[in-house]
Amino acid sequence: MIDEADITGRVLYEDADHKFIWLGTDSKNRKSEIQTMQYLIIDRNKGVLLDPGGVHIFSRVVAAVSRYISIDNIETIFYSHQDPDVSSGIALWLGITKAKVYISSLWIRFLPHFGIVDSSRVIAVEDEGSKLTLGSGVELEFIPAHFMHSPGQFNLYDTRARILFSGDIGAAVFNGGDDVLFVENFEKHIPLVAGFHKRYMASNSIVRKWCDRVRKLNPDMIAPQHGAIYKGASVAAFLDWLSQLKCGIDLMN
Amino acid sequence: MIDEADITGRVLYEDADHKFIWLGTDSKNRKSEIQTMQYLIIDRNKGVLLDPGGVHIFSRVVAAVSRYISIDNIETIFYSHQDPDVSSGIALWLGITKAKVYISSLWIRFLPHFGIVDSSRVIAVEDEGSKLTLGSGVELEFIPAHFMHSPGQFNLYDTRARILFSGDIGAAVFNGGDDVLFVENFEKHIPLVAGFHKRYMASNSIVRKWCDRVRKLNPDMIAPQHGAIYKGASVAAFLDWLSQLKCGIDLMN
Repeated sequence: MIDEADITGRVLYEDADHKFIWLGTDSKNRKSEIQTMQYLIIDRNKGVLLDPGGVHIFSRVVAAVSRYISIDNIETIFYSHQDPDVSSGIALWLGITKAKVYISSLWIRFLPHFGIVDSSRVIAVEDEGSKLTLGSGVELEFIPAHFMHSPGQFNLYDTRARILFSGDIGAAVFNGGDDVLFVENFEKHIPLVAGFHKRYMASNSIVRKWCDRVRKLNPDMIAPQHGAIYKGASVAAFLDWLSQLKCGIDLMN
Repeated sequence: MIDEADITGRVLYEDADHKFIWLGTDSKNRKSEIQTMQYLIIDRNKGVLLDPGGVHIFSRVVAAVSRYISIDNIETIFYSHQDPDVSSGIALWLGITKAKVYISSLWIRFLPHFGIVDSSRVIAVEDEGSKLTLGSGVELEFIPAHFMHSPGQFNLYDTRARILFSGDIGAAVFNGGDDVLFVENFEKHIPLVAGFHKRYMASNSIVRKWCDRVRKLNPDMIAPQHGAIYKGASVAAFLDWLSQLKCGIDLMN
């Protein structure tokens, strides 16, 4: 169970210029929908929102953001991919902010189907990835994670906080009441991640390459959009497990 | 260009009990969003809607359906997968119909993020597929099409009309003004389908198996959610081309 003190969020990294914040949980009010996690980077008082989510949780996330920063200071929204739980709130977020949106070029022509979307505010990230430099000079790197599961998916690596926001990669599916914020013991966590990764990730060849690239980044934490955050020994343990996993097409062939 | 007479739809198959209808186009009003096609099966005056689409086109599709059948008689909605252009209108459709929704079991816990969704009306299609028998006895078969592109995707095969609704498979990306309803000459159509299939479909191993299965169904038409409908010689020509295509992970390895 998530500690009562963490329900409204937790600062994962902080220095004079820069913060990386987990925006809390909705576990007590969740019913049939999968649990999701949202993150906020604040750099010199300007905000970057990571996968702020769908219509369903919009009001909760607005409230959570407002505890840390004025909504007017959200300059950037990053969407890892096109799924309902990731990006279906886009029209609402464009309505209450002046933010620019970054998403894979594969989804640019699909986003308007969510509703009224001003395409001039949506910036396509090309397949090889790119970087965004924040006010303090900190770089955010868009790391390719295609076919894990979405054919056009990016992670976001915060080079100052040394946190990799990994979208669906590392996702755990909780069964109600068993939510935790951090993965303390990866062996115990495997039953919550195995089914999802075997079925949604496209193949071992693609996940193995991603693991190799992430090992070079050497992040302190891997923060997925579902489940719990990997830190300490669980980062390497997760990468070792995933790089060996047969999944997706491997199991259908 | 689509004929003026077809803008409000076209009956693709019809007998005393059963119709398969293409619901027309929005090509004149389209801006930055990808073109989509919706279909309606009517069997003994009850309707099955195929990928009725997102919030953006909801009102147009409601109007199109109402030309053929009362909205009250829509009993079933089939979603091929979870993308915004396919299913983001789900809360609106559940609101104006009493329909049951069929979608891959992979997306059951993701759909509520689109908004207020009554999960008791959503039926999970398991990975191996299933069948639905309509009032006249006609069977609709849910054909697995996983990783093309969505990890959980189904086609719908209407065994009476002999039409395969193929979701994203066969999709063409028109550039504005070059829309056609039927693929008359597949060689000329290749430039409109090649880029999409190479980038979004996961691998040749998976598309080749799908082609083998579809050849056994021997459909008269393949009707995708984007682009144009394959009939006559273009059905086999498309399958021959796709079964040889290197795509997705093949090109990233």
